[in-house]
Amino acid sequence: MPASSAEPSSAVLADLLGALAYGELTAFQRLAADSVLAGSVVDAAALGAMAVAEYGHHVQLTAYLVGRGIDPAAAMAPFVAPFDAFHLQTAPADWLQSLIKAYVGDGIGTDFYREVAAYVDPQTRDLIEAVSADTGHAAFAVAHVREAIAADPTARGRLALWARRLVGEALTQAQRVAVERDSLTELLGGNVDLAEIGAVFGRIVAAHDDRMRALGLAD
Amino acid sequence: MPASSAEPSSAVLADLLGALAYGELTAFQRLAADSVLAGSVVDAAALGAMAVAEYGHHVQLTAYLVGRGIDPAAAMAPFVAPFDAFHLQTAPADWLQSLIKAYVGDGIGTDFYREVAAYVDPQTRDLIEAVSADTGHAAFAVAHVREAIAADPTARGRLALWARRLVGEALTQAQRVAVERDSLTELLGGNVDLAEIGAVFGRIVAAHDDRMRALGLAD
Repeated sequence: MPASSAEPSSAVLADLLGALAYGELTAFQRLAADSVLAGSVVDAAALGAMAVAEYGHHVQLTAYLVGRGIDPAAAMAPFVAPFDAFHLQTAPADWLQSLIKAYVGDGIGTDFYREVAAYVDPQTRDLIEAVSADTGHAAFAVAHVREAIAADPTARGRLALWARRLVGEALTQAQRVAVERDSLTELLGGNVDLAEIGAVFGRIVAAHDDRMRALGLAD
Repeated sequence: MPASSAEPSSAVLADLLGALAYGELTAFQRLAADSVLAGSVVDAAALGAMAVAEYGHHVQLTAYLVGRGIDPAAAMAPFVAPFDAFHLQTAPADWLQSLIKAYVGDGIGTDFYREVAAYVDPQTRDLIEAVSADTGHAAFAVAHVREAIAADPTARGRLALWARRLVGEALTQAQRVAVERDSLTELLGGNVDLAEIGAVFGRIVAAHDDRMRALGLAD
């Protein structure tokens, strides 16, 4: 745990919550669009409900930014290109790919934000925890993917490859953001050492492995 | 006005609200997906809010069906193919096309349902009125389309053609449903004469013309 959780600077807060707000908006857009891939109206509506929950998070985040005197559109602007590139590179070809993307992709994002939340003031931390709450992706995705693999075991290799590709694209874009923006370094700078950063990444990777196992896609 | 507003039969109610519920679900899916065409994050979020409102209507309708002892998935099933075909044939190529689709397409659907509402029991009528409320499409679409035409008058002909194509596709699918399903005939059968049906269509066409004028796309 960090030594302290001081109030982050306005620029850091704008970057952190701007990225999260735009991420939630694109998650909403893509989940809703992907819901047309569902095999039934009930499944489509279920994915729709998750998309609507993401939109609610987007609204919470932009309202919070406004309350802190930060323009949400300006705060989101630096993250439009990386998020759009991620989604362009990972457009699901079918329903199972869209479920895995929702579960694995959002899972890594959520874990990252929960780790970062340790370094911000309590009010911002509460917000991040609230918008990181599971919107139902997990149980829904796990049940459907396991069922599909049980029905067609040959799908397993293809879906495992897809999950790896998602992680690769997410890391590519995260790296791009990290190089261009100093705010994360600034946020962590005064509080962490390399061992702690290593522990953070270790926890994120372990949680990802847990998700892959839950899906039946672990090596 | 119809002579009476008796409780429609369960089969008629299932068709009427099933079509509306699936229509709202697809409106949600397509508006959310089309929001990626927006030129700014603020516009994307605004279209997202409208999509979320449509999803709320979908939930209201399915809950109402359940309350009447009707399975929503079964009620929606006959309308999946026509709505999906409509959206497949009218995938917007750009932001302005998506706005016109949201405004013109939803407008005709809403007008149709408001006319039908005259023939059902008061409780169902209240529900139809509630889910037909303008979710903000109108002012948003009109402002953006007029602005775009002012900036580039050559866009007008192309967008007017698009609006006509939307109406043509909507009528094609509505005709297909009318041929396959007797419920609308049954609903109207005891209460209307041909003159009244003519008046209904006249009102729907007049309202469409009003929307085209509001957009600056009337001939």
